Amino acid sequence: MFKIPDHQVAGHKSSKGAIGPLVDDSGRFYKPLQSADRGAQEEAFYTKFSSNTEIPNHIRKFFPNYYGTKDIEASDGSGPRPHLVLEDFVSIRTNPSLMDIKMGSRTWFPTASEDYIKKCLNKDRKTTSLSLGFRISGFQIYGSKDSGYWKPERKCVQGYNKDDVRLALRKFVSSNSSDDLVAEEPDCVYAENVYGGDNGVLAQLLKLKAWFEDQTIFHFYSCSVLMVCEKGESPCATIKLIDFAHVIEGNGIIDHNFLGGLCSLIKFISEILGKFSHNSTKVCVVNSEKNTSNGYKI
Amino acid sequence: MFKIPDHQVAGHKSSKGAIGPLVDDSGRFYKPLQSADRGAQEEAFYTKFSSNTEIPNHIRKFFPNYYGTKDIEASDGSGPRPHLVLEDFVSIRTNPSLMDIKMGSRTWFPTASEDYIKKCLNKDRKTTSLSLGFRISGFQIYGSKDSGYWKPERKCVQGYNKDDVRLALRKFVSSNSSDDLVAEEPDCVYAENVYGGDNGVLAQLLKLKAWFEDQTIFHFYSCSVLMVCEKGESPCATIKLIDFAHVIEGNGIIDHNFLGGLCSLIKFISEILGKFSHNSTKVCVVNSEKNTSNGYKI
Repeated sequence: MFKIPDHQVAGHKSSKGAIGPLVDDSGRFYKPLQSADRGAQEEAFYTKFSSNTEIPNHIRKFFPNYYGTKDIEASDGSGPRPHLVLEDFVSIRTNPSLMDIKMGSRTWFPTASEDYIKKCLNKDRKTTSLSLGFRISGFQIYGSKDSGYWKPERKCVQGYNKDDVRLALRKFVSSNSSDDLVAEEPDCVYAENVYGGDNGVLAQLLKLKAWFEDQTIFHFYSCSVLMVCEKGESPCATIKLIDFAHVIEGNGIIDHNFLGGLCSLIKFISEILGKFSHNSTKVCVVNSEKNTSNGYKI
Repeated sequence: MFKIPDHQVAGHKSSKGAIGPLVDDSGRFYKPLQSADRGAQEEAFYTKFSSNTEIPNHIRKFFPNYYGTKDIEASDGSGPRPHLVLEDFVSIRTNPSLMDIKMGSRTWFPTASEDYIKKCLNKDRKTTSLSLGFRISGFQIYGSKDSGYWKPERKCVQGYNKDDVRLALRKFVSSNSSDDLVAEEPDCVYAENVYGGDNGVLAQLLKLKAWFEDQTIFHFYSCSVLMVCEKGESPCATIKLIDFAHVIEGNGIIDHNFLGGLCSLIKFISEILGKFSHNSTKVCVVNSEKNTSNGYKI
């Protein structure tokens, strides 16, 4: 039985007259092949990635499992259509908070058409992609049984500047965040549980970084890091890379565009941990404050 | 007594009717303030950098010492003109090999004029800046007393693709390289001495990288890494950052553009060391070959 996923913060959505992803009851996510070359390119990526024996297992787990491509009835009722069959790592969660972060200061690849480059470059300049090396594409934050989810409009998120991004990353790990960005100071009480620790977001991003410093197989243009977590004592935060319609061959060169953005994101997360972590030492806090004031003073 | 420096591989050169840098006998390098805002901006950078107490000493040594600005007779005889007074770390060398590597996949800063952005973007796309995250602006390689220096035309270097860059970085540490790029396979006999070791180029680049992962004070657009070495048993390779006419404030964000290019350069140097180092273990060589073939196969 296919249904429209409950939780989606970016990308094309299923609705009447619009094709979007579907999920089933067995933990699989069905992503319709996108038009033009995109669908074929994403399928080609999953095929290459799945069969590549050089990808270490601790890196492979950052990618959704791929179960081939299958024709199923499209979500808009327009008949059977090929869908990528992927692992559904979101629907299995209870009250997941999600954030989709599109990586890289440049979302266009060198051999793209001039029109496409112009369109992407304009968007990279208007959003934080150019300045931060990444942009938030969308997110939802679970508040409580009463308040439910806070999920800002996509248009609003696209207008975020660096301070909004910083605030959103803090709200993502706060208990008082199920409202808009002008609310009270986020308390960051879940920072250590979600971002910190041996299996937290920061540790996972650092593992990814080490791989990106070395791997020259793929360049991931316009690809997103999806952060998924449930708040509470054992939040079990997960990082996955998604959206591979613009992955090209690395040809012996590292993906410095993705890597630069990843290092920038790591710095943001580290600062939040330095400032708000309950377990952090005083030295950490002092250093973090020093760095920040430094950046603004000069 | 001012004179035109013997060794310069990029930037404006002194000649009859052209203003360029001068050196004196006491180890100082005089760089004329560039026109428009560039000169003032570079002077402002040196002033800020010199007085900034947050720059660790092990990082400060990657920058030329700055001794203020002084009016001296310009190299073209047009009268007194303000010059930045800097450390001359090249003329003191005997037979130096030099390479000027302009860092970053993007040489323009977000607030630049549309004309400037267009000009830079075109050049970034034509050269290896976009694909590799850096481009070689110029170099000279000392061969022997007989062959002297090999110093390819600037126009030729600007046309380098990724394979030319790889070859040039190998020739830089070879004994049979004082000729053009179609000569015999470079022997890389100086790779371990120049690129490897505790004080070699790779170790220095890794120190810089650690700083760039954290520092949010400056963004170094269109800045170069200058590699300087003398071949032989004790080559004493030096890395310096130069050209700060387009440095802007970091405002709390890391310089992901410079950092991405730096990681890419580090990967190139690591591969040369992995392949040609006499001290490297078999495991290193095997890994390096695996990675390379990987990059091209998929």
